[in-house]
Amino acid sequence: MTNEQWLEVFKKIGNKMRGGLSVIMSREGGTVPLGKGAGGDKTFPVDKWAEDIIVAALEKAHRGGENFTLISEELGIRKFGEGEKVVLVDPIDGSNNAKSGIPFFSASLALLSGKTLDTLAVGYVINLAALDEFWAVRGQGAHKNGSRIRTSPLQGITLVGFEASSPASDIPRLMPLIARARRIRCFGSTALDLAYLASGGLSVFATATPSRAFDYAAGMLIVEEADGVITDLEGTSLDHIAVGLERTVPLLASKNDATHVMALNLLSEPRS
Amino acid sequence: MTNEQWLEVFKKIGNKMRGGLSVIMSREGGTVPLGKGAGGDKTFPVDKWAEDIIVAALEKAHRGGENFTLISEELGIRKFGEGEKVVLVDPIDGSNNAKSGIPFFSASLALLSGKTLDTLAVGYVINLAALDEFWAVRGQGAHKNGSRIRTSPLQGITLVGFEASSPASDIPRLMPLIARARRIRCFGSTALDLAYLASGGLSVFATATPSRAFDYAAGMLIVEEADGVITDLEGTSLDHIAVGLERTVPLLASKNDATHVMALNLLSEPRS
Repeated sequence: MTNEQWLEVFKKIGNKMRGGLSVIMSREGGTVPLGKGAGGDKTFPVDKWAEDIIVAALEKAHRGGENFTLISEELGIRKFGEGEKVVLVDPIDGSNNAKSGIPFFSASLALLSGKTLDTLAVGYVINLAALDEFWAVRGQGAHKNGSRIRTSPLQGITLVGFEASSPASDIPRLMPLIARARRIRCFGSTALDLAYLASGGLSVFATATPSRAFDYAAGMLIVEEADGVITDLEGTSLDHIAVGLERTVPLLASKNDATHVMALNLLSEPRS
Repeated sequence: MTNEQWLEVFKKIGNKMRGGLSVIMSREGGTVPLGKGAGGDKTFPVDKWAEDIIVAALEKAHRGGENFTLISEELGIRKFGEGEKVVLVDPIDGSNNAKSGIPFFSASLALLSGKTLDTLAVGYVINLAALDEFWAVRGQGAHKNGSRIRTSPLQGITLVGFEASSPASDIPRLMPLIARARRIRCFGSTALDLAYLASGGLSVFATATPSRAFDYAAGMLIVEEADGVITDLEGTSLDHIAVGLERTVPLLASKNDATHVMALNLLSEPRS
């Protein structure tokens, strides 16, 4: 399949989730853990429901002749035939919000033509609570709800987003950046943080705990195709990172190069 | 009018906002400031649009024979006849999210029978981006989308929400609490933070910059009617606070008394 055909598969998955979400959530489906996913986080019924929709769509693509490897937050690594392509999935990014009844969580899907992030070809993120849909195909720009999006070209740090898996250690690490922000946000879904940065909402986004590729790969392509920048906290490109289930590096994303340099400088200041 | 009749007025306002929001937002209505509101924040078209809906509904109530004083984040203080009742309004709580295209903002309306917060009679908060509707009438419990809500009776600090108007000074003040959280959230709408605490999503919510009564009065009643607790950071009741446009005190809200004591103890530790 072409990248565009893969994007259509991802959009169909998003549409199917939109249709069924209210039922699974109203059954208190989000609130009782079922066990732990391959990524180490607890699995909730809403995660399982989301992954079932995704796996069914991918099985259909495989029956249609596509070979690829699925790497998913919940079920781990599964081969669909022998092929170079990789599909990276976080069925519900923001599970803690979903299970807490807080409407800010997403599904994140990415297609790669190979094993490292420089082969990212398609990124798709859907806000399942508010229905914003983001996607990017490499070389074709980033889109929100069908319209082309671009980050702001203006330098400056106004609204800063971050995620902190370990608040006690992550906040001190990010504090030089946080202290310079006009306002800060911690929404609980890395995929959405990156998507709303790409669409002009956030100036900068950072994590201190290393993130896993399925959390950020789709958002990374959306940011880059919207003229944003994403590296680790030292400014190193993420292109060489091999995708898998393990944690990789902390993230720093910015709306443009000049703002990224400001953020890198803040985070490299000697800490007391 | 009775409290229940006032609740119906607030619900009609919420419904009218639901109906028109997508139009005002799609016209980029949220993104260009119009000036500064009475509370000192910038006014955006979405704020003006929201306030116009609210004022029209309140004018109708006044024509129907109700006398009250309106205190609103945008237009300040306006008397609708001579009467003891006060209507406290934040037309859009989370304006920075709204104008950034981030779907997490609300309208907040409260009715008081007098000038201090111990006279809170009705609280109404609507998440305009995800359509969750919260309300409480004193003595009749708190509700989300028509169902009775209660906080968890279990002690413990898991998901902690906070707001930081001045991140550089607010985060260090709240750090003893943040460091003990399993996960943290900073959503950008105090009214919604309190509403999602009341419905079981957050364990604790705190601010360090003094909040204004129209930001938290509706959420305060919803929290209290859901068996939650809200005080300032020293544990002092908010009941004596006279409502107005100025900043009052920083807030600490918790799902129950035992958790509130834990949070107060953390925030009272001597800081290095």
